[in-house]
Amino acid sequence: MIKLPEKLTTAIDAISKLPGVGRKSATRMALTLAKWNNAEIEEIASGIIQIKSINKCHSCAMYCDDQYCAVCLNPSRNNQFLCVVEGVNDLIAIESSGQFRGTFLILGGVLNPLLGIGPDSLNIEMLLNKIKHNNVEEIILALNPSVEGDATCSYLKQIIPNNVKINRIGFGIPIGGNLEYLDPQTISKAFENKRQL
Amino acid sequence: MIKLPEKLTTAIDAISKLPGVGRKSATRMALTLAKWNNAEIEEIASGIIQIKSINKCHSCAMYCDDQYCAVCLNPSRNNQFLCVVEGVNDLIAIESSGQFRGTFLILGGVLNPLLGIGPDSLNIEMLLNKIKHNNVEEIILALNPSVEGDATCSYLKQIIPNNVKINRIGFGIPIGGNLEYLDPQTISKAFENKRQL
Repeated sequence: MIKLPEKLTTAIDAISKLPGVGRKSATRMALTLAKWNNAEIEEIASGIIQIKSINKCHSCAMYCDDQYCAVCLNPSRNNQFLCVVEGVNDLIAIESSGQFRGTFLILGGVLNPLLGIGPDSLNIEMLLNKIKHNNVEEIILALNPSVEGDATCSYLKQIIPNNVKINRIGFGIPIGGNLEYLDPQTISKAFENKRQL
Repeated sequence: MIKLPEKLTTAIDAISKLPGVGRKSATRMALTLAKWNNAEIEEIASGIIQIKSINKCHSCAMYCDDQYCAVCLNPSRNNQFLCVVEGVNDLIAIESSGQFRGTFLILGGVLNPLLGIGPDSLNIEMLLNKIKHNNVEEIILALNPSVEGDATCSYLKQIIPNNVKINRIGFGIPIGGNLEYLDPQTISKAFENKRQL
């Protein structure tokens, strides 16, 4: 393999650290960037660098520009309904469905003793504060179906005040899914969650 | 869709300009970057920004750190053999085969009247200088097989001094290729380029 100039290899090393970008794609990207003018290269670099100064919402831990995120600041959201998610990506996925009109809390992960993630690593205090401050009536736990997700739900049920109704999102056949190809666990969940027509 | 904070959308807009990166991957990359510490984010941004100061080899137009590239500076390369390629990626591909021990010239494209790419847009002068300066004996035109590539080869044949031998790289069945699935043009080229065993 040819020895590329150092500036190019430095760029390739850096770009290949982006998630989902292998060495070959990084090389292609660096070579394309090398063809661009200075302003275009600067735009990409500055777009990346200003991520450093991104804030987290004081109320739900979502990324935001100032102190609070767009959802928490929106007066038309019903903040007595609270949806607890693991991470930002889950929040974005739920918001894009447009189904939920309450507010969110990002837990920042799930309990995982093997990885040393205990309650202290999660936004538990923020959750309890939000329940109290907003007089939350109902919580929807939108944690992923996994051993850790299940354990975290059990833990949260113990610490959330008794007067708050706690639900977990429904599991079953995804829309567009095909029974033939689904795993047995999903199918048995779908039978548990049957509904009268 | 949720209105993401401006800093995140600015980053996503910037990242999605990278070749082969769609909006969804860019969002994933920006969200991952947001989890990283400042030093890691800076490393990527500075890796990209320093591409601005990359140079081009005075002899072959390959990217380099100083005035000349590693191939042109390498005394063990036979600079009487010259390989003409369209772009940097082609040079890298040929170098990784390890087959060619001469030097290169990057043409910077192929003639394309529809896109307004005439001889003036290509490194023709650099090519003629290199032929003269290095007493080039043989030129291998490694331009891609396309209408524009073919036209560029014909043009180069006219302007390259008559005492220089001009070849074009061979076309045929690629190694690992399967006759059954190859296009008729490749197959007819492979018949034209038959060789005695």
